[in-house]
Amino acid sequence: MTRERIYLFDTTLRDGQQTPGIDFSVEDKIAIARMLDDFGIDYVEGGYPGANPTDTAFFERKRTSNAKFVAFGMTKRAGVSVSNDPGVAALNASQSDAVCYVAKSWDLHVRVALGCTNEENLESIRQSVEATAAAGKEPMVDCEHFFDGYKANPEYALACARTAFDAGARWIVLCDTNGGTQPHEVREIVAAVIAAGVPGDRLGIHAHNDTEQAVANSLAAVDAGVRQVQGTLNGIGERCGNANLVTLAATLGLKPVWSRRFEIGISEEKLKGLTRLSRWFDELLNRSPAQQAPYVGLSAFATKAGIHASALVKDPSTYEHVEPEKVGNVRHIMVSDQGGKSNFINELNRRGISVAKDDPRLDTLVSIVKEREAGGYAYEGADASFELLARRTLGEVPEFFEVVAFRSMVERRHNAVGKVITVAEAVVKVNVDGEERMSVAESSNGPVHALDMALRKDLGKYQAEIADLELVDYKVRILNGGTEAITRVLIESSDASGARWWTVGVSENIIDASFEALMDSITFKLMKNRGHAGLAAAE
Amino acid sequence: MTRERIYLFDTTLRDGQQTPGIDFSVEDKIAIARMLDDFGIDYVEGGYPGANPTDTAFFERKRTSNAKFVAFGMTKRAGVSVSNDPGVAALNASQSDAVCYVAKSWDLHVRVALGCTNEENLESIRQSVEATAAAGKEPMVDCEHFFDGYKANPEYALACARTAFDAGARWIVLCDTNGGTQPHEVREIVAAVIAAGVPGDRLGIHAHNDTEQAVANSLAAVDAGVRQVQGTLNGIGERCGNANLVTLAATLGLKPVWSRRFEIGISEEKLKGLTRLSRWFDELLNRSPAQQAPYVGLSAFATKAGIHASALVKDPSTYEHVEPEKVGNVRHIMVSDQGGKSNFINELNRRGISVAKDDPRLDTLVSIVKEREAGGYAYEGADASFELLARRTLGEVPEFFEVVAFRSMVERRHNAVGKVITVAEAVVKVNVDGEERMSVAESSNGPVHALDMALRKDLGKYQAEIADLELVDYKVRILNGGTEAITRVLIESSDASGARWWTVGVSENIIDASFEALMDSITFKLMKNRGHAGLAAAE
Repeated sequence: MTRERIYLFDTTLRDGQQTPGIDFSVEDKIAIARMLDDFGIDYVEGGYPGANPTDTAFFERKRTSNAKFVAFGMTKRAGVSVSNDPGVAALNASQSDAVCYVAKSWDLHVRVALGCTNEENLESIRQSVEATAAAGKEPMVDCEHFFDGYKANPEYALACARTAFDAGARWIVLCDTNGGTQPHEVREIVAAVIAAGVPGDRLGIHAHNDTEQAVANSLAAVDAGVRQVQGTLNGIGERCGNANLVTLAATLGLKPVWSRRFEIGISEEKLKGLTRLSRWFDELLNRSPAQQAPYVGLSAFATKAGIHASALVKDPSTYEHVEPEKVGNVRHIMVSDQGGKSNFINELNRRGISVAKDDPRLDTLVSIVKEREAGGYAYEGADASFELLARRTLGEVPEFFEVVAFRSMVERRHNAVGKVITVAEAVVKVNVDGEERMSVAESSNGPVHALDMALRKDLGKYQAEIADLELVDYKVRILNGGTEAITRVLIESSDASGARWWTVGVSENIIDASFEALMDSITFKLMKNRGHAGLAAAE
Repeated sequence: MTRERIYLFDTTLRDGQQTPGIDFSVEDKIAIARMLDDFGIDYVEGGYPGANPTDTAFFERKRTSNAKFVAFGMTKRAGVSVSNDPGVAALNASQSDAVCYVAKSWDLHVRVALGCTNEENLESIRQSVEATAAAGKEPMVDCEHFFDGYKANPEYALACARTAFDAGARWIVLCDTNGGTQPHEVREIVAAVIAAGVPGDRLGIHAHNDTEQAVANSLAAVDAGVRQVQGTLNGIGERCGNANLVTLAATLGLKPVWSRRFEIGISEEKLKGLTRLSRWFDELLNRSPAQQAPYVGLSAFATKAGIHASALVKDPSTYEHVEPEKVGNVRHIMVSDQGGKSNFINELNRRGISVAKDDPRLDTLVSIVKEREAGGYAYEGADASFELLARRTLGEVPEFFEVVAFRSMVERRHNAVGKVITVAEAVVKVNVDGEERMSVAESSNGPVHALDMALRKDLGKYQAEIADLELVDYKVRILNGGTEAITRVLIESSDASGARWWTVGVSENIIDASFEALMDSITFKLMKNRGHAGLAAAE
């Protein structure tokens, strides 16, 4: 039996941008588009060129290789010709493969929000779609408020969809803009659209999570015939979010009830990167991943004591609806210390460190990690620090140098010409082979940058070796909050070989935490130069 | 038309206890049971008396007034008579109104986990139910793995349900224990159970969220005939959690597509306490409420977009699937560079600031906000800084005092007894009414804490006024990343009146950014004392 193709359409960069508290820079958008493209998403909607400087800059180049790159915007305004509409012109001039027009399909909104006639709105849809097709791009139409519009005036909602289809839109996307539609309603209304002459393989679904059913609404639409599914990474989006594309990709790709009928553009091999993709995105947003997230959460395959755990050990398959490995997650049985230990051995083996199961140093390592993680460390995001800790516990890391003292200062004052300036300065005293060296550095980028520069200014005989070490990223998270806050710093480093590694530091004092992560990064680099660093650097 | 009654069954205290990281004390359980009881939940499952000391103590008294108080446990073991089974005896002796037995309904698990015959398992169900009925309690049976069991061996799964029914169980609950069943499968299998002779008003549904469809599965079961719905507060539970009873109560109670067919035990008036209940529970768990939670999240009725926001102000009902007031939440139109001028006017009005649409100062404010947000500020999370900026632009904020200079230092060194210590110290010079004052403070919690202490040490005539000002939370976000990183600091403050407000600071230098947010907080407090601060402080 041939499987029908389902197209996944990501709107993280457009509807996801509506999430309260989330604002993407052009660099963020580039990084996210690349991840989605690599992962096998079919369409990446990048934003609204012309509406704001970020999106305009983002659309100055095509940002995907395999995925179609989609610009979003409004249909032409009523009363101007399509060739005189600057919005439509900007969309068609952008470096996109496709243009997705948002069009009102609820007559009430046509009247109240657009202030034009129903027929003028249909004409805007028609002409905008035709202009995009003429520009050599794939046209699609998001029918805004489609489900509520259909309930209020089914003929007009259907006319909007039908007009877009007749004008040549590749996709007509049915949007549950307010997010309140229930799955059985989605099913009925999709059937009505198909009955009205728009075939399912030209229909998409765009669901919101206001009743916690965005995923179910999307799948109900697929079951009813729709072949494009829109969503976002980790379900971000306006109000309660959009359909979670992470969950949808796993469900469509791995649950036989769907995968025997349908095919998605993400291979089984790529799906194993799902957990990594989801957590990488949270990391970019600088927020903790949701522990209970389906498929990818830390607890998604965790079992806590009680009736299930012992049976789970005997036969996991009867207690798990999919295998965690298929989405790159791991099983987590919290009763058995053995489970934890074999996880560690696995992790160490992956880094080329072998240790026997009954080696007492392994118990020491397990308890150090547990204790540190309870205190705020997060080794999952700091591979290099984990590796160093493991190698130190197993006695393999030399003390290359010692920092005897440091001082980091920030001062705001008036300079010689009376202008208020803020400067940061750091002094570091190191001991290399019994010889003390003192360095000072100044920065306009704050105390951590000054400390980093001073620390790497003179490491004696190691100085040449770390010349290509570079700080790539720096993240801070405050744990607990309030005055008893603990600060966790994550630093990403790279060198001329292209390797990248993450280190972590934790302290009540942000400078102290940063210093710890900087020290780990330098030590890791020195280990790596000696061929003693494994996986963290290889990735 | 008479509406059929749906019974809500809460398992927060039993299945919710399986959530990784969550452990309830007896006091927690008492408080939660009381909240659920007051709210109008029909059944409160309290735990497993006899299995652990907490649950045994909890069941020493009846803990609900209106709701039925339910004890959970296993059916009698095979090979012993029901009167000789200590587990069953403990359940029936507990101060509960009802006993919910978990029974295997997948033949594979009967064999592997119980190690008895299929007929012995049916006999255990029968005798356990009869023993509870004889003890004067309401018996119910959770059919574990019902859906997977049905797929593997429909006859046996149905036989389990039917046996429980015939023995007199008030409710036979169909459990999707592994959480992987899809809504259309739930619908089909519920129909098969009803066809096999167990009426819908004796059936319950217990869904898990492993494919993000626990709510949809619960509602699909209701649509198919089931009349009891199990879930937990905020959807906590094993792995990805249980069905979210908060969402289900709102959807069943407020969405006409459900509420015209069904009635729940929670009055419309009580439903207005839903947001409070959900947030109270997170508070008890000591975690931040999920911002995007359906109905009750801070963002559930928030709008950021320009296109929607202006229309939303005109007629909220067409942009909201339910009214926020009905669940005790509030509408929130956010200030952001995506919002238009009408957003701003609205936000200013809410703070008691009136400004005409054509006032040129309004254009200045809009452009300042846009420019600052492009530079990394995020006013939507910093109400107080937004309000100060607005009042400053409209010329209403006096300069209470001036900071002439500050210096903040972190030093790691050996102390007098040779121990490595890290200390932070800050010096601040302020000018109040032409008089310069210099303060110094030291902290073991880092440079920002030291700066905060020094800044608030001596503000002259304002000192007494800010005595009750308190730093509640501190968040740091690094934007862009790498060496050109910009730091955004958000600070939450409160005072003796219970008011809370957020301020923001942005700089390449984290100390500078923190200083800016601290300054805004103090200025806001001084404005507030003078009755010139609006919404931000009132919430």
